[in-house]
Amino acid sequence: MRATTIHGPYDIRVEDVPDPRVEQPDDAVVHVLRACVCGSDLWAYRGQSARVPGQRIGHEFVGTVVATGSRVRSVRPGDLVLAPFTWSDGACVFCTERLPTSCTNGGMWGAVGSDGGQGEGVRVPFADGTLVKVPAGAASDERLLRGLLALTDVMGTGHHAAVSAGARPGATVAVVGDGAVGLCAVLAARLLGAEHVIALGRHPDRLRLAREFGAADTITERGEAAVTAVREATGGHGVHAAIEAVGSAEAMRTAVGVTRPGGAIGWVGAPHGSGEGLDVGALFMNNLTLRGGIAPVRSYIPELLPRVLDGTLDPSPVFDSAITLESIADGYRAMDERSALKVLVTPT
Amino acid sequence: MRATTIHGPYDIRVEDVPDPRVEQPDDAVVHVLRACVCGSDLWAYRGQSARVPGQRIGHEFVGTVVATGSRVRSVRPGDLVLAPFTWSDGACVFCTERLPTSCTNGGMWGAVGSDGGQGEGVRVPFADGTLVKVPAGAASDERLLRGLLALTDVMGTGHHAAVSAGARPGATVAVVGDGAVGLCAVLAARLLGAEHVIALGRHPDRLRLAREFGAADTITERGEAAVTAVREATGGHGVHAAIEAVGSAEAMRTAVGVTRPGGAIGWVGAPHGSGEGLDVGALFMNNLTLRGGIAPVRSYIPELLPRVLDGTLDPSPVFDSAITLESIADGYRAMDERSALKVLVTPT
Repeated sequence: MRATTIHGPYDIRVEDVPDPRVEQPDDAVVHVLRACVCGSDLWAYRGQSARVPGQRIGHEFVGTVVATGSRVRSVRPGDLVLAPFTWSDGACVFCTERLPTSCTNGGMWGAVGSDGGQGEGVRVPFADGTLVKVPAGAASDERLLRGLLALTDVMGTGHHAAVSAGARPGATVAVVGDGAVGLCAVLAARLLGAEHVIALGRHPDRLRLAREFGAADTITERGEAAVTAVREATGGHGVHAAIEAVGSAEAMRTAVGVTRPGGAIGWVGAPHGSGEGLDVGALFMNNLTLRGGIAPVRSYIPELLPRVLDGTLDPSPVFDSAITLESIADGYRAMDERSALKVLVTPT
Repeated sequence: MRATTIHGPYDIRVEDVPDPRVEQPDDAVVHVLRACVCGSDLWAYRGQSARVPGQRIGHEFVGTVVATGSRVRSVRPGDLVLAPFTWSDGACVFCTERLPTSCTNGGMWGAVGSDGGQGEGVRVPFADGTLVKVPAGAASDERLLRGLLALTDVMGTGHHAAVSAGARPGATVAVVGDGAVGLCAVLAARLLGAEHVIALGRHPDRLRLAREFGAADTITERGEAAVTAVREATGGHGVHAAIEAVGSAEAMRTAVGVTRPGGAIGWVGAPHGSGEGLDVGALFMNNLTLRGGIAPVRSYIPELLPRVLDGTLDPSPVFDSAITLESIADGYRAMDERSALKVLVTPT
């Protein structure tokens, strides 16, 4: 089959790789209908996260089951499924505690030895613990298919950020970062009942989408000016809940700076320097909570999926560009240059 | 009156200072019956926290009200009272949210321009928001008086750590640090129903007290060996709740290392390098929560005081040494050398 590989910084290729097949009794093989490029793929693309030359890449996909191992019970060939960005056995102590990202048998698509999401097919370990069956009719509904694809990562990650930050009825929420995760966090904060959501970013078109998603205010200032602007918008005290959806020192510094004493920072940006933005003195004196991490999106699917299916939650607009698998390198370039927010990839 | 002052590293004196008096309508003046030396006073003593030469010091005291301003309603002369280590107006938005340490009119005993706790008397701003009246009979019960004194800081701080870490029925808890706060955190974790409390420290006598306070295991290893020992004691996964009761990089590193995925670190050690012990990669991958800070002990007094009064909570054994005010420099020395756990000070 054809699949995306990364050979070094800015070197994304589409190559022939072995067809996926059932290797273990718990495996399923999924034919990918839609995949996409993630902001976190850019850390590897830019050389900020190490990769073995030729390693697969991509961790978001929706597709059709084409084969299953002898122990698989929850899905069968022909089913439309989505996969969270990590696989998990669904049975270990951490899966039981709704933390499948810490599954003792878990892993992430694109890890060495596994298939990535940006290809024609994927061998899925622990299919029962990993895959979620969705109504077959969604396959012919492009908007819905995109909404389901968002549940594999960005929507679940944005939700984890909002939950971790303590977004709730009556709360003020600041979302630092206008990437797809930040925008989904706006949706999630509103879904959780947050009263006043403030989106911080640099791109007018993305902030326009943040408003469509329910942000009451948008702020384009950065650094200290951003902190001042958020404080002014919240009676001087800051927000109850801040969301750090970037993973950089500056974003974390802003999140800490805008949070009200006793408030919480929900962080989901893969840390690339964000530790430097953690002013522990400020955390201490203001009793700020830092909560979050790699999002256990599998655990959120049962509550978010019905909302996507009934249309009350629609993250599909985060996909503002669509390409074929063969031109995926263009998609990476567009996201790296920020001319695309999130690129949808259709393998065939 | 006589009061303790600090003139530089290792330079603690007892000097004549102006008598406290009612200066504002919300003030009360308290005659100190018992005070003590705090582990956090040692940061100033060792020169790790800056002080103005001659600045007062001490922030824990129990005493008798001797005068009140015209607006004070909750206490009157003759009342036995305790004061949390910060004063607060009891009326601002943060006091209302049970975070008096962020009071917009708050401050800490010993700050420049205020009295410290280690003296014969204290002018208490915002007496109604700050002081808590306790039964007068406690004044003649030395054990009880010490228990009440512990509520002014170390017991409330240990409780904040345990609450912040999520100590609860069924939880495993590790307490890093065998100072008075760490030991009180053991008491608090048990009070909150924690099933299995592990105390980490270096001093056999303090760890013996930790066992008396309810710790099932004590661990004297440090660094990686301590992490290994805690993991071995918890089936390999680590604890649900870790308490960082020191404020150093090493203690924080241990707390992060022993926490189970999805668990929380309650931190109350005033940060002196603890930021360096925060491995944000580990926090992120394991979804660890960092929660806590300067303890709002005033908010915990209503729930802890009845337990101290009825004897079901007894932190008094943390005081293992008692001296008079005039010899307080010896008390600092003993605590600095760790020959005393916590020094009780009687002004007269």
